[in-house]
Amino acid sequence: MMTTTPAWLAEVKFDTQGLIPAISQDASTGQILMVAWMNAEALTETANTGRAVFWSRSRNRIWRKGEESGHIQQLVELRLDCDGDVILLKIDQIGGIACHTGRASCFYRRFEQSADPQASKWVTVDPVLKDPELIYK
Amino acid sequence: MMTTTPAWLAEVKFDTQGLIPAISQDASTGQILMVAWMNAEALTETANTGRAVFWSRSRNRIWRKGEESGHIQQLVELRLDCDGDVILLKIDQIGGIACHTGRASCFYRRFEQSADPQASKWVTVDPVLKDPELIYK
Repeated sequence: MMTTTPAWLAEVKFDTQGLIPAISQDASTGQILMVAWMNAEALTETANTGRAVFWSRSRNRIWRKGEESGHIQQLVELRLDCDGDVILLKIDQIGGIACHTGRASCFYRRFEQSADPQASKWVTVDPVLKDPELIYK
Repeated sequence: MMTTTPAWLAEVKFDTQGLIPAISQDASTGQILMVAWMNAEALTETANTGRAVFWSRSRNRIWRKGEESGHIQQLVELRLDCDGDVILLKIDQIGGIACHTGRASCFYRRFEQSADPQASKWVTVDPVLKDPELIYK
């Protein structure tokens, strides 16, 4: 069946692999939870169903966030940036955990600068809320 | 002169083009302001100087954010995600404008869903705070 690309989707600039980065942000707290990738199909399904759907580059397939973990992201607001090449999802994170490590956010490593630049490091500063082995049974 | 890659930088996974996406987030409000790209040099300079420095893909050179506009981003906190392939900058946005359109944030277009999916659209919902012609004199 032939389908026409809707005008809103035509404004979105996917990269040469047909993907666009998408940021998930907690709609109430503003915390940045994760960044994943979408293709046109994932973005369309997200827009139509109100549930965050991505393209998994590692598994090379559509990834309905929460399909295994139950940690679904319910869409509150969808935004596009000035260049049309980044998507922002403001969402409600079911279960309060976005990261596969069992943390609220994937951005749990903070840069700690040292006087000796060679000794600077990334320090884990956010707690694991749930054992991943219990999440992905 | 030979230099050794610091351990913290070795943990950062740049893509095949040597780049990593970096999100700038207002440190006080949590608003997502923009997404740009960094190479190892830009990330190192950002970490060392406390000022956001990117790699401009369009100009193919180091881009010290604010070098023309004065809209410098002062680093408050630097974070890395679980996969090591996205950078988060929590920053103070000098001048309150991150976008080249003169808006606070680049994410000023909101998706407005229509009952007819073909009629859904991106709607500009945030105001221009300063005429870009006055910013880039």
